Amino acid sequence: MTYASGRHFLQIPGPTNVPDPVLRAMSAPTIDHRGPEFAELGRELLRDIKPVFGTTGPVIMYPATGTGAWEAALVNTLSPGDKVLCFETGHFATLWQEMAHGFGLEVDFVLGDWRHGASPEIVAEKLAADTAHEIKAVCVVHNETSTGVTSRVGDIRAAIDDADHPALLLVDTISSLGSIDYRHDEWKVDVTVAGSQKGLMLPPGMSFNAVSEKALAASKTARLPRTFWDWQPMLAANERGLFPYTPNTNLMYGLKEALRLLYEEGLPNVFARHARHAAATRAAVRGWGLEVLCLDEREHSGSLTAVLVPEGVDADKVRAVILDRFDMSLGAGLGKLAGKVFRIGHLGAFNDLTLAGTLAGVHMGLVLSGVRIDARGMDAALEVLQSD
Amino acid sequence: MTYASGRHFLQIPGPTNVPDPVLRAMSAPTIDHRGPEFAELGRELLRDIKPVFGTTGPVIMYPATGTGAWEAALVNTLSPGDKVLCFETGHFATLWQEMAHGFGLEVDFVLGDWRHGASPEIVAEKLAADTAHEIKAVCVVHNETSTGVTSRVGDIRAAIDDADHPALLLVDTISSLGSIDYRHDEWKVDVTVAGSQKGLMLPPGMSFNAVSEKALAASKTARLPRTFWDWQPMLAANERGLFPYTPNTNLMYGLKEALRLLYEEGLPNVFARHARHAAATRAAVRGWGLEVLCLDEREHSGSLTAVLVPEGVDADKVRAVILDRFDMSLGAGLGKLAGKVFRIGHLGAFNDLTLAGTLAGVHMGLVLSGVRIDARGMDAALEVLQSD
Amino acid sequence: MTYASGRHFLQIPGPTNVPDPVLRAMSAPTIDHRGPEFAELGRELLRDIKPVFGTTGPVIMYPATGTGAWEAALVNTLSPGDKVLCFETGHFATLWQEMAHGFGLEVDFVLGDWRHGASPEIVAEKLAADTAHEIKAVCVVHNETSTGVTSRVGDIRAAIDDADHPALLLVDTISSLGSIDYRHDEWKVDVTVAGSQKGLMLPPGMSFNAVSEKALAASKTARLPRTFWDWQPMLAANERGLFPYTPNTNLMYGLKEALRLLYEEGLPNVFARHARHAAATRAAVRGWGLEVLCLDEREHSGSLTAVLVPEGVDADKVRAVILDRFDMSLGAGLGKLAGKVFRIGHLGAFNDLTLAGTLAGVHMGLVLSGVRIDARGMDAALEVLQSD
Amino acid sequence: MTYASGRHFLQIPGPTNVPDPVLRAMSAPTIDHRGPEFAELGRELLRDIKPVFGTTGPVIMYPATGTGAWEAALVNTLSPGDKVLCFETGHFATLWQEMAHGFGLEVDFVLGDWRHGASPEIVAEKLAADTAHEIKAVCVVHNETSTGVTSRVGDIRAAIDDADHPALLLVDTISSLGSIDYRHDEWKVDVTVAGSQKGLMLPPGMSFNAVSEKALAASKTARLPRTFWDWQPMLAANERGLFPYTPNTNLMYGLKEALRLLYEEGLPNVFARHARHAAATRAAVRGWGLEVLCLDEREHSGSLTAVLVPEGVDADKVRAVILDRFDMSLGAGLGKLAGKVFRIGHLGAFNDLTLAGTLAGVHMGLVLSGVRIDARGMDAALEVLQSD
Repeated sequence: MTYASGRHFLQIPGPTNVPDPVLRAMSAPTIDHRGPEFAELGRELLRDIKPVFGTTGPVIMYPATGTGAWEAALVNTLSPGDKVLCFETGHFATLWQEMAHGFGLEVDFVLGDWRHGASPEIVAEKLAADTAHEIKAVCVVHNETSTGVTSRVGDIRAAIDDADHPALLLVDTISSLGSIDYRHDEWKVDVTVAGSQKGLMLPPGMSFNAVSEKALAASKTARLPRTFWDWQPMLAANERGLFPYTPNTNLMYGLKEALRLLYEEGLPNVFARHARHAAATRAAVRGWGLEVLCLDEREHSGSLTAVLVPEGVDADKVRAVILDRFDMSLGAGLGKLAGKVFRIGHLGAFNDLTLAGTLAGVHMGLVLSGVRIDARGMDAALEVLQSD
Repeated sequence: MTYASGRHFLQIPGPTNVPDPVLRAMSAPTIDHRGPEFAELGRELLRDIKPVFGTTGPVIMYPATGTGAWEAALVNTLSPGDKVLCFETGHFATLWQEMAHGFGLEVDFVLGDWRHGASPEIVAEKLAADTAHEIKAVCVVHNETSTGVTSRVGDIRAAIDDADHPALLLVDTISSLGSIDYRHDEWKVDVTVAGSQKGLMLPPGMSFNAVSEKALAASKTARLPRTFWDWQPMLAANERGLFPYTPNTNLMYGLKEALRLLYEEGLPNVFARHARHAAATRAAVRGWGLEVLCLDEREHSGSLTAVLVPEGVDADKVRAVILDRFDMSLGAGLGKLAGKVFRIGHLGAFNDLTLAGTLAGVHMGLVLSGVRIDARGMDAALEVLQSD
Repeated sequence: MTYASGRHFLQIPGPTNVPDPVLRAMSAPTIDHRGPEFAELGRELLRDIKPVFGTTGPVIMYPATGTGAWEAALVNTLSPGDKVLCFETGHFATLWQEMAHGFGLEVDFVLGDWRHGASPEIVAEKLAADTAHEIKAVCVVHNETSTGVTSRVGDIRAAIDDADHPALLLVDTISSLGSIDYRHDEWKVDVTVAGSQKGLMLPPGMSFNAVSEKALAASKTARLPRTFWDWQPMLAANERGLFPYTPNTNLMYGLKEALRLLYEEGLPNVFARHARHAAATRAAVRGWGLEVLCLDEREHSGSLTAVLVPEGVDADKVRAVILDRFDMSLGAGLGKLAGKVFRIGHLGAFNDLTLAGTLAGVHMGLVLSGVRIDARGMDAALEVLQSD
Repeated sequence: MTYASGRHFLQIPGPTNVPDPVLRAMSAPTIDHRGPEFAELGRELLRDIKPVFGTTGPVIMYPATGTGAWEAALVNTLSPGDKVLCFETGHFATLWQEMAHGFGLEVDFVLGDWRHGASPEIVAEKLAADTAHEIKAVCVVHNETSTGVTSRVGDIRAAIDDADHPALLLVDTISSLGSIDYRHDEWKVDVTVAGSQKGLMLPPGMSFNAVSEKALAASKTARLPRTFWDWQPMLAANERGLFPYTPNTNLMYGLKEALRLLYEEGLPNVFARHARHAAATRAAVRGWGLEVLCLDEREHSGSLTAVLVPEGVDADKVRAVILDRFDMSLGAGLGKLAGKVFRIGHLGAFNDLTLAGTLAGVHMGLVLSGVRIDARGMDAALEVLQSD
């Protein structure tokens, strides 16, 4: 890499820009993970992480990245041969069901167009048909990082309740937690999967399972093998603020600071900020005459916006121009969207002027890539930003 | 915690004192883990990590703490019902075989007194008796963090070779790698398990599997389920310097700096320094009139020294006095050694004067705890430090 | 201050945004300022600082902010009652001549309109008239931080030469060094005054005097009292990489890193980047229908742009709206320009997208303040940024 | 420098070991020094710095190292030709009177042996004799950094009062402030000179003048020229938390954190800690059979201990051995003590085990340099450290 002046614009949909105070907090010396000072930190974090999930129940913290928390959600609650209902909402939903398959689970994978969230109607239908209660879990990705489409978890919960079906509800919030309104308890989610590197504004390396009573009960009989991901020794050690094996202490310092920042801003303000930036971004995209991938107005992501490039344009070439010329990283199209979209991350530690700079970079990158756009895109975005 | 002036002495046997430049390196902004700058970093680290293991083969880097790398070594190479040979060399060896048991492996657990390493003679005996080659793996902890006793891996290798037995050799080097001479290739180890938070001088959060050709071949047929720990997608993505899921970028910055420091000092010098500090520590312990836990002169650890307290003394109370009065953390006795030993970590980023301060703290803490010691312990240690 | 998400936009004309690696470098432990490691650092910096000034002669480094380096330039070269020629190019030029006056110098202060640089014609005139060579020094501010107007130092040098006059040429480059092309040796400047906190991308706390042979000769007979600022003991100690009193070690770590960044980018590239950003900023200002303070096309600053607000608008209120609403700091109008201009700093560690964000913030702040602007300002700026 | 494992022991008598949290605080982004956030910081620091000086009056903060604060004390209170009374207590006292001389003051320099503080008796004598009140100021170095001898400022104050003499009392506390009990108001000191890099635990770069009403009154008529050091514009700007020229913002962040640490420990505890470490150090020195430079039991420094080496030994060679072999910096003998003493700094962020490591390094360095010492020195020090 040649040296580039100023700060890199990291506008992928995560890992996000880590705030300076979080990076500084993480650079404190590592302490004894079995000593009293650590135990105090552990207890504090295990308590203070809960409001971000909208839960009063336990949240497991893994010293491992988010994919591990996916695995944990499955192996703690299910047994070989169990049936799970999954939705093809995008690349990550596809990977998660592949993982389930790899663990010997039977996956009912509802296909999709990657432009809509999981359908509450289909959940209702599938569960109603499952009179034998063979479906043990419904797996939903709250915010598809590959598409910028959210699934309406509250509506899915209602569909499960209406069907009076005992299936567990497992939700991936990796790119929504701390960015988009989320309610583990209110929506009666059984396992919420999350990671550190998006709305929590930390570097990658830590992941989470928020766990319901029902999920805990399921874990008592679940027979998939597990040790590193096992909830039971975690919960036992967590009682004293400790962990059954070495935790990643320095990321925990960062988490403490990140939670302080989130609560200082106020979660409702954080969610509103993300929604406002998403709206400004869509205004820019539409102002340029381009298309947003998400097709349902109820399902636009507050965390990122996936933009379809016109036929004949290679989205990856546009991204390369922007990286080379303006030192900004955007998200690539993944899986079947490769080359067809680019993704603008507007989540985490972010503000109006950085969004304006981001959109200016996209604007100029599109022009330099030969994509015809209407100059009014930027104006439309600024209108949104200055109007409330 | 009340505020204590100066630096805390973190003299547990890991996590170790992270050098300032490593902490600073880790506080650089997180970058796009799919971009070209990251790929360059990934390729560099995957190459430069090899000499620490004494290997030219692949080293898998997990964004998870060391216990995960234990799990990875098992699930990638073994199938349910496989027989493994383990040795009760201490607390961690006991935990590892429990994990193996939890995965449905059949464990032959050779009991021990926690004062000796794994016996090459018993390995020879067991393998010779196993004419059906039912034993699929021999698991050894190179340096027992709970006892300060090393196992002679080279001799164990020789025993396996002499028996002409195809069992895999799996070795835990969590508290020896980067501190005690270790030779993955020369000793034909099949999987070497390691972590970031000891001799590599990093905070916890990263762990490793160095993998032999034979282990790779075994992984093709091993049937324990795995996704997060699976070597195959790792090795595939590593080709391009990338990872199949989000890596923990900021620890990787730290690893780059830590490797630079290790190689600048020179691995042979690093090993000699640890051996010298261990010798000075034993000189102090014996000078005080106390007993070192390890009973075999060939098996003293370079990383830590476990010290037996006299009958009637509670080692944990001594540690508490030292923490409270001198702001130094020492390792507790674990498992069956609880209260009977304390452990002095002298590994990682460490030097003569910090060792002298450490030993002075132990000296004073013993005195203040009412343990009768001979004042000549300190002198004996300084003799060692100044004599070469 | 309420917490604001994301990074503050520090777009005053200095102190500037300090690059992360510089901040990290500064957080290394302080070392012995009389030891061999320090001496090596001192020698390296005293050598490597020279190209930024365009000199091969000595550069004095003071552990004090820039105002001190002004004082140093005067007290090392002049004696009570000496006559100096100064130009009212703005607020800082006015302060400097006040300082000269305070030291008992006789100041010929050529009045100005704060919209032009120092006049080479007047220099020529004044020196031609001074046949008795009473004028001992000509003092010029290269880049007036209060106005965004540069003085043409090369032309002033020519005027002095044409007059065949022995006056010293003292130049303040506090807000130009490392941002705008500058040539201490080529322009035969006798003392160049500079600070750390602008183009050098460091926090404030260090300042400089680059010194010609002629200035050194003058210092032998100059009779203004001096100790802290005295060049002679500095130069003597600098021979060995040391300082006659305690230097500010940690800023020196930062300087080492900042110089590395500047030279990696390449000084000509650095100057071109600043000029390009200044051009884009003027394009925005004019596109909005507002007026740039600087009136001479040859004298536009590469470091900052001062913008006149329309009659009836209070520039400080516009700045307050921008700070409150968009978390961006702009420079106030100083002295006689108070309330009439705001100043956009675009110097130091800076890039296209941050400039775009900056201009978007100014745009929105003007709109929210009720200033009628033409929306095409942003477009005009992006045109400049994308066109070369 | 070759790489050395672990932390360097910086045991010169300043700059001292900067605590990690102070270094981290200093690495926050620089902010607008004219904005509201800065003003709040400025007001807070200008208020919170006072208790360290034992004053309720104003404390001037200079963005320059300590030598500048010496100069400031003189130029703000005195006029050319004024007579000042100074004491040759060591190297720094000598330098300060040279500075006074350089500013055209008439210095009555009372010679000394560098092993005692300034004599209250001689102050009494000199002032009594000065019936014309020609002596305008008495200058005293509270803690001579070159000798480890303190002057009894309270007794000197009493001597001035007894003589009923109007001379100002100027005191240098550069290496005592924040380490040794000091009372600006109670002792009616007129100007207290201090720096950031010793007891305040900051890197060098900031210095102070605590100023009495009487000193302020004197500054109204004092005729030495001054601009950078001038109190009046400082005090005027400080009213609003601001400074008349660019302050060194990042050191101010560090100061905020350093004051928090000092007050959290409690100043009386800080002073007691220093006194205890000084006592342990003297116990070691005497236990080794060596001589402490300071001859008066009432005048031992809490900050540092200067140790005389036996005839025929070059103290600088001992220091070189210690630096080379044990990576520890000690203070050299300065001026007439060059080669005859080395100085052990035990001030700032420091604790018992670091002191033990320091003394062990001195012990071993002396042995390796061929100095015959008694091994009981270390024991004697540990006795002190463990006994209270």
